[in-house]
Amino acid sequence: MFADRLNNIAPFRVMEVLARAAELESLGHHVVHLEVGEPDFTTAAPIVAAGQKALDDGHTKYTQATGIPELRHEISVFYKKLGVEVSPERIVVTAGASGGLALLAALLLNPGDEMLITDPGYPCNEVFTMLAGGIPKPMVVSPNAGFQPRVEDVECVWTERTKGILLASPANPTGTMLERETMAQIANFVNTQDGFFILDEIYQGLVQTHTYKTGLQVTDQLFILNSFSKYFGMTGWRLGWVVVPEAAIDPITRLAQNLFICPSAPAQHAALAAFSADAIVVHESRAQAFEQRCARLLEGLTDLGFRIPVQPQGAFYLFVDVSHLGMGSQEFCRRLLDEYFVAVTPGADFGEHYADQYVRFAYTTSLSDIELALERIGTALEAWQ
Amino acid sequence: MFADRLNNIAPFRVMEVLARAAELESLGHHVVHLEVGEPDFTTAAPIVAAGQKALDDGHTKYTQATGIPELRHEISVFYKKLGVEVSPERIVVTAGASGGLALLAALLLNPGDEMLITDPGYPCNEVFTMLAGGIPKPMVVSPNAGFQPRVEDVECVWTERTKGILLASPANPTGTMLERETMAQIANFVNTQDGFFILDEIYQGLVQTHTYKTGLQVTDQLFILNSFSKYFGMTGWRLGWVVVPEAAIDPITRLAQNLFICPSAPAQHAALAAFSADAIVVHESRAQAFEQRCARLLEGLTDLGFRIPVQPQGAFYLFVDVSHLGMGSQEFCRRLLDEYFVAVTPGADFGEHYADQYVRFAYTTSLSDIELALERIGTALEAWQ
Repeated sequence: MFADRLNNIAPFRVMEVLARAAELESLGHHVVHLEVGEPDFTTAAPIVAAGQKALDDGHTKYTQATGIPELRHEISVFYKKLGVEVSPERIVVTAGASGGLALLAALLLNPGDEMLITDPGYPCNEVFTMLAGGIPKPMVVSPNAGFQPRVEDVECVWTERTKGILLASPANPTGTMLERETMAQIANFVNTQDGFFILDEIYQGLVQTHTYKTGLQVTDQLFILNSFSKYFGMTGWRLGWVVVPEAAIDPITRLAQNLFICPSAPAQHAALAAFSADAIVVHESRAQAFEQRCARLLEGLTDLGFRIPVQPQGAFYLFVDVSHLGMGSQEFCRRLLDEYFVAVTPGADFGEHYADQYVRFAYTTSLSDIELALERIGTALEAWQ
Repeated sequence: MFADRLNNIAPFRVMEVLARAAELESLGHHVVHLEVGEPDFTTAAPIVAAGQKALDDGHTKYTQATGIPELRHEISVFYKKLGVEVSPERIVVTAGASGGLALLAALLLNPGDEMLITDPGYPCNEVFTMLAGGIPKPMVVSPNAGFQPRVEDVECVWTERTKGILLASPANPTGTMLERETMAQIANFVNTQDGFFILDEIYQGLVQTHTYKTGLQVTDQLFILNSFSKYFGMTGWRLGWVVVPEAAIDPITRLAQNLFICPSAPAQHAALAAFSADAIVVHESRAQAFEQRCARLLEGLTDLGFRIPVQPQGAFYLFVDVSHLGMGSQEFCRRLLDEYFVAVTPGADFGEHYADQYVRFAYTTSLSDIELALERIGTALEAWQ
């Protein structure tokens, strides 16, 4: 009865983890949540205040399909501070990065077109590709290359049916970044193939070490996907943006008009405050908190004997090899939650290749809960020996 | 470079109207806006207050993909008051009706599947169909049948490739409703074909005369598309819902998780107040205001010699025949705006068949502006004789 694409959309394993965690909590257990792909912080006070004022001011109606001019201007200024000229016309405000990816898929993919994505990677990328009738082609990215493709990898899998590539930097679930040189090489190659290159930068700003602050510093041959969710802490507001080349402005505007009418008006007005000095102070202190948590969790898990083959450069995830324990990652996740009340996400949510070997730890919880998790995992390892 | 579907997405004519109106306003002219498909009222105070409180309470994070349980419960109670049992599980809260239609298209259409829509009709329906690779098949609906299809019309155009039908009641741009008996017949026919029937009820509540308050009173063989935008006055918040059969709950949930993560959290918490007694008083007084405006505009245009072949039963539009004036509807719209500063939307935005003969008047402005518009149109008609 339902469309064939449904056969290719597996439920997220993390949903089962969340449901089981809720069950355990209802029985009175304190569960440590290291499975959630969302900052534990609520939206910064200046943004909340701007949102409330927007409601007072009656900003409850439709806006321009591509976003209010003031916000597109602010985003343009944001890039200017990174040394990149992006005119407001090339910036399209979207209903989260999800809305942005829906627009880009509809803009760029004909039915039957292949789009390259990574395994492991963000699981929904496949579904957006399929929504537009495209065929997602996962490229295995290995720990040896920092869980990012090299240009040879791209050249190797690119076929006549391949229309483009979607990469993330920093990436989910690994937190690793695409190297500057590699990005330039891939952009060049894609260009020779008349293809497109979408760079997902939704973790921009939550980066510890980098040689670029946006891919636009490296090459202008990019469609940029971004979000107010992570660094700006606005997950539930559902607001993001894309940067597109000049030629795409008219067609993506028509798509945005038809498919979304506009992004949330209160969210857009709130987001104007996301760039204020007050808000940036909050965002930066949270970015530092993530950095501290990362260091502690990395150290703690390494001390416990886990192999984390590539240190993350950003985002808020560690992709951890659990294969030495003699159990698959799903069993590890289930037992860790059931027996020790620590929730993490099995690798199967992010692809197939490393699915049974790896687990994603999200450090989206307090340092003290991270300490507690490490203690419990230590006890678990002793018991499981 | 861009996907083929872009060739089939025309820009909205109303965008040119809006741009020209803004230009005239910047020159100091008072333009009467009868082109806007959005209530002129801002969101009712109780909803705004609930939105502000939600922000105070930190409801700025992701929610369940299908909406917070409290809101799904409220919507279920809303149906119960109309005498229809709809369990909260069957209700999926969406990012506007736009988000709902994207989900239903992805759920129900394989590439190449045909979906029947009406001409005239809501222009974006075609684009959602094409997004999923489907083929929109417009059925001409004539003033003789109240701008709605009869079951014979549906039977006549249904082919082996047809997978389903999307109808709106009340409809845009005509404001007419599908008759109870016809709806039941179409539902029966579609059922025998193993097809689906989506009923767009986004103007529910903004109805003057009716024999049903929701299609679910007539048949349970429906996918319902609804919105907080119109009756509930929450356009810019981007919130809506769909009602699906039991069998669709799991697959649409997976689609919602992947394509949207969740609808806006602040909007969902605000919408809880949309069903409060305080808010309903506001909604009802606005519905009455629309009714008064409709009566006045209908009377005024009829007095001026316009033919409005079918009186609207709801929504906030009149679909008006301008063919007796000896000019096409686009020329009529352009001249009325340029020479008399009254903005209306040409029929071309809603289909092809009546495109050059009809104009949509939206009574989304004050009675006094409607009087002014009638005066100006009267002057125009005299001058153009």
